[in-house]
Amino acid sequence: MYFASDNSGPALPAVLQAMIDANAGYATSYGDDALMDEVRDRIRTLFEAPQASVYLVATGTAANALALATLSQPWQTVFCTPLAHIHVDECNAPEFFTGGAKLSLVGQADKMTPDELRQAIAAWPKGDVHAAQHGPLALTQATERGRIYSCQEIAALCTVARDHGLPTYMDGARFANAVAALGCSPAEMTWKAGIDAVSMGGTKNGCLGVEAVIFFAPENAWEFELRRKRSAHLFSKHRYLSAQMLGYLRDHLWLETAQEANARAARLATGLRSVPGARMVFERDVNMIFASLPRATHQRLKTAGAVYFLYEGPLDTGPADEPLLARFVCDWSITEAQIEAFLSVARGD
Amino acid sequence: MYFASDNSGPALPAVLQAMIDANAGYATSYGDDALMDEVRDRIRTLFEAPQASVYLVATGTAANALALATLSQPWQTVFCTPLAHIHVDECNAPEFFTGGAKLSLVGQADKMTPDELRQAIAAWPKGDVHAAQHGPLALTQATERGRIYSCQEIAALCTVARDHGLPTYMDGARFANAVAALGCSPAEMTWKAGIDAVSMGGTKNGCLGVEAVIFFAPENAWEFELRRKRSAHLFSKHRYLSAQMLGYLRDHLWLETAQEANARAARLATGLRSVPGARMVFERDVNMIFASLPRATHQRLKTAGAVYFLYEGPLDTGPADEPLLARFVCDWSITEAQIEAFLSVARGD
Amino acid sequence: MYFASDNSGPALPAVLQAMIDANAGYATSYGDDALMDEVRDRIRTLFEAPQASVYLVATGTAANALALATLSQPWQTVFCTPLAHIHVDECNAPEFFTGGAKLSLVGQADKMTPDELRQAIAAWPKGDVHAAQHGPLALTQATERGRIYSCQEIAALCTVARDHGLPTYMDGARFANAVAALGCSPAEMTWKAGIDAVSMGGTKNGCLGVEAVIFFAPENAWEFELRRKRSAHLFSKHRYLSAQMLGYLRDHLWLETAQEANARAARLATGLRSVPGARMVFERDVNMIFASLPRATHQRLKTAGAVYFLYEGPLDTGPADEPLLARFVCDWSITEAQIEAFLSVARGD
Amino acid sequence: MYFASDNSGPALPAVLQAMIDANAGYATSYGDDALMDEVRDRIRTLFEAPQASVYLVATGTAANALALATLSQPWQTVFCTPLAHIHVDECNAPEFFTGGAKLSLVGQADKMTPDELRQAIAAWPKGDVHAAQHGPLALTQATERGRIYSCQEIAALCTVARDHGLPTYMDGARFANAVAALGCSPAEMTWKAGIDAVSMGGTKNGCLGVEAVIFFAPENAWEFELRRKRSAHLFSKHRYLSAQMLGYLRDHLWLETAQEANARAARLATGLRSVPGARMVFERDVNMIFASLPRATHQRLKTAGAVYFLYEGPLDTGPADEPLLARFVCDWSITEAQIEAFLSVARGD
Repeated sequence: MYFASDNSGPALPAVLQAMIDANAGYATSYGDDALMDEVRDRIRTLFEAPQASVYLVATGTAANALALATLSQPWQTVFCTPLAHIHVDECNAPEFFTGGAKLSLVGQADKMTPDELRQAIAAWPKGDVHAAQHGPLALTQATERGRIYSCQEIAALCTVARDHGLPTYMDGARFANAVAALGCSPAEMTWKAGIDAVSMGGTKNGCLGVEAVIFFAPENAWEFELRRKRSAHLFSKHRYLSAQMLGYLRDHLWLETAQEANARAARLATGLRSVPGARMVFERDVNMIFASLPRATHQRLKTAGAVYFLYEGPLDTGPADEPLLARFVCDWSITEAQIEAFLSVARGD
Repeated sequence: MYFASDNSGPALPAVLQAMIDANAGYATSYGDDALMDEVRDRIRTLFEAPQASVYLVATGTAANALALATLSQPWQTVFCTPLAHIHVDECNAPEFFTGGAKLSLVGQADKMTPDELRQAIAAWPKGDVHAAQHGPLALTQATERGRIYSCQEIAALCTVARDHGLPTYMDGARFANAVAALGCSPAEMTWKAGIDAVSMGGTKNGCLGVEAVIFFAPENAWEFELRRKRSAHLFSKHRYLSAQMLGYLRDHLWLETAQEANARAARLATGLRSVPGARMVFERDVNMIFASLPRATHQRLKTAGAVYFLYEGPLDTGPADEPLLARFVCDWSITEAQIEAFLSVARGD
Repeated sequence: MYFASDNSGPALPAVLQAMIDANAGYATSYGDDALMDEVRDRIRTLFEAPQASVYLVATGTAANALALATLSQPWQTVFCTPLAHIHVDECNAPEFFTGGAKLSLVGQADKMTPDELRQAIAAWPKGDVHAAQHGPLALTQATERGRIYSCQEIAALCTVARDHGLPTYMDGARFANAVAALGCSPAEMTWKAGIDAVSMGGTKNGCLGVEAVIFFAPENAWEFELRRKRSAHLFSKHRYLSAQMLGYLRDHLWLETAQEANARAARLATGLRSVPGARMVFERDVNMIFASLPRATHQRLKTAGAVYFLYEGPLDTGPADEPLLARFVCDWSITEAQIEAFLSVARGD
Repeated sequence: MYFASDNSGPALPAVLQAMIDANAGYATSYGDDALMDEVRDRIRTLFEAPQASVYLVATGTAANALALATLSQPWQTVFCTPLAHIHVDECNAPEFFTGGAKLSLVGQADKMTPDELRQAIAAWPKGDVHAAQHGPLALTQATERGRIYSCQEIAALCTVARDHGLPTYMDGARFANAVAALGCSPAEMTWKAGIDAVSMGGTKNGCLGVEAVIFFAPENAWEFELRRKRSAHLFSKHRYLSAQMLGYLRDHLWLETAQEANARAARLATGLRSVPGARMVFERDVNMIFASLPRATHQRLKTAGAVYFLYEGPLDTGPADEPLLARFVCDWSITEAQIEAFLSVARGD
């Protein structure tokens, strides 16, 4: 009963098989392998973006920090929410990669509104040499709380950015889950809505460790390559990144995996509603659920071996019915049986 | 007939199998996986260093840049040879990770001498606020030209560093090849000779992409972890780095693989001596050979499909007997038959 | 009628005379001039801190950014208010000098409370490699809104910092004005209250451009010197910084100048209370007043040639009685006659 | 008998007087003072460059590091000589301000040749993502050894840079001395020879602390302003920088002062030729002389109170006739009588 994170589960067999298949003979190193050509073609086709620059890195933080550094200057400020992974979970990687840019926090939650973005931009007077200068907008889709922006919401935010001449980046660590939830195309959720660069995460959705970074305009390509090398994120045996991504892209695996993970979370959410004292914090959009459960329920679950992230505590002492907030993530490998077993314990059957 | 680099060959089957074996069930992410505990234990045992801090990263440049940044300050200068990978091949990664430290070039070749090191240190007056301050010594073992320092040579250089209070780092991208050539123990080649931190490369010797960074003194541990995270080199699904390194460490595979690659290069070197017009630039120490061959010989080899790095040119025009410098690297997967075929073409049989 | 800023007025004659006096013969460069010895002695005596390290730089931003960089690490976060000069007015200088540290904003105003500080620290989980690590507390005294912390308030905040092992810095661009307002000693307002490092501004209080940076513990001295040189803030003809600071320190000039500026602002504040429609936003503490006046009053003042900073607008169109926020700063050179003239216009006499 | 450096002498009375004159009434801060308008006009006229961007900073290192950072990228390498101030005397300031660019050393001396520059550029393969990328050429005029490039030599070096698409910077800490020695115009020595940006030093030639940075193409202006602010080099009371530079520019003072300092050094050089055992290392070009004198002569001079920089030693022990290298700098304030007194002691009259 593992709901800790979608990065603690195993890799998809097809992804691993693609790596095994790639492990034959010699391949040009440092990203010039033939598999990468296929990756690039497939992603351009998938995104309906024949001119896009496509790169692979091994971690989501690398994708975020490199893309933002490419889109910004050290004297600028990135605009993101206070819950953004780039602010909260990357140990100042964006500040490091950008050479000291600032992150300005927009709104109070995991999703921002156009008004909040406008206010955050207006807080820094344009053209004032003393102020942080306006830099890129960074959205997370799906968000760190498992919610999604609609394509219309993305477009509205990108319009604000565009009005101020700011580039736009989407942290797509859970890109596939968001596409699956929206039922839109990758193009609709990105460049058609005004996104300039996006990461398409593989790691959380069944790969071992690979993320694609896609720039829809070609002018950032060479700078990104230099930044990737300079930050030690260019792999010599790059074929194993390419192979993972290929295995992930073939046969719509990326999308089907996300659809299944989302479906599991939907089942879990439905089930949680029948757990006494359970309260959903957000509507479930993708494969992540934020819910509070009574302390006694948590105690029962932990005793039964369930693994997930508890935000509030302490677990051991306090009123049995006090609600404690927790996060439940369904990765691709969780089974329906595991979910039913979890719910059974939660309900105290 | 691939002699381009030891990073263009396939991974060892046992390393790949270890990854496949690791792909079951859930594992704690971000370096807290159980496999990493075994890696740490094995490396501490191998290096006879029970207190050592052990970390894994995916690229050699990450290992170098993170270790050097941990051992230095931005106002210092690293001491390395003009051929050092950190100077020549990393697109300023050391300067980036250190926050702007300088690299001072010692001597003229791929190996430095104690006298050259002393002179390079003396060139920066100690305690002068205008000067770059003295920072770490960085050696490459085996060197970028495929040569090795003896343990005595390492100790002599580390003594110079110690006399000036400087920490010492060994870039061990080809660590195993050097140990195999010297027939010494890992401890003898590192901390017993005065090395403070070392990278033990896996990537060039049969892994997909993994390098261990080892600090023999424990005081740098937490800073290294923060630097690794901040530079996006902490893997969420870390088990796949651990598994590679485990497969590599088990059954002396790391050493045997290097011994075989070295032996193949020895055979190639011996054979080249009978090639008309061939001249070895250095004595062969490990799995890399620098030799000049007549242009006509290169033309014959390239026509026959041999792949290797040619330093001088042009290949197509010029005197048939003009010697052109080239590098030949034997990775673990090269076969004796391939070497004999190569030599046969070279000799013009 | 100039109330724009305390950095738009002239320098004190005694400060200028000290520079003229210093302009004779030869002096050792780069901070080893004899005048600096006297500066160091005087500041140590003034602060009752015989071990303090004392340095001079030419700008307040240099003082702030260098001191914070010396007290922090790139993976840490500084704690300051959302109105702090280091956040709002330095074009990311702290991020640049620290190598990419983050600024975490405490509370909502120009002064923070211990509870707000505790919450801001708690928002970053201690020892979590993904989070920004806890770094220095930075207070501004007097604040950017012209208010002051009492010595007790400073001590309470420093206690919170000390409880978390965090160093503490005071941005004293208006240090003298705060000491004058509190009637305390420099020691009481700094190290006796728990401050580790402070800037003592001269520029805003009658110097041409000089700020002292004082570390009460000696261990940061050499690092600060290297950081100052590396950031190009070590003056070759340092005697002119020393001379300014000497002229400023002699005969209690620093304190008397601030007392006079504060007194002028007190008169202005008293006078503004009799201006119809005027409203003070804060109680006046030092030489800066935030007040809203009706648009018509502003129009009259601007027409009469008064210079000051208007936060809200537009000035030209809108209801005559709409209150618009403005800032009025009294520098040392403003005269009582100018203040009376200003008030007369404001009242519409 | 002070020959230590041209930054240990006093400031020119006219420069100081200009500061005194500027110290009246209010002036807009942060570079928008009226005096700066006059500085800008005068420098544009002097350089016959009506479109030039002109900025003031207080130190030569700030001028160099800010200009180079503006002209380069962090993944590039600057090309300079091994004796360049930016390499030897700035504690890694260029590496800091550029965000980690590398300095590649050209040739072996204080002056480089076109062939040496071509070789240094060719050492970094163009367009190779592993290599440091080609960045700006940085010349020092006059050099750190007191020599000058002719305008033809500058043009030849800039042509090499231009052939590779590299921008060009001139460190003009002793700009005036070089113009005085060449008898050319500022335009001839800079943009007419292919220089893109230059610093025109005031500090070493009689100012207190001011350097102009001039970009002949306007596209770098705003970025430079942001970099200046972000590095804390934008002065609030900027009028005192403007006034110094104005005093320096008026009545050809900058040029006449340099002419006089050069003439003093010429007299010193002539006199040294008659000192037994003296040997000039270079022909004298400007106000700086490198000469070796017998140990006994140095001993006599030091005993007599002469102050200058001795490169070789020890002074106290060793053969009386052993030649020891020293540097003698004539600043504007040195008198003919002092020089004659010095020579008399040197000759042992």
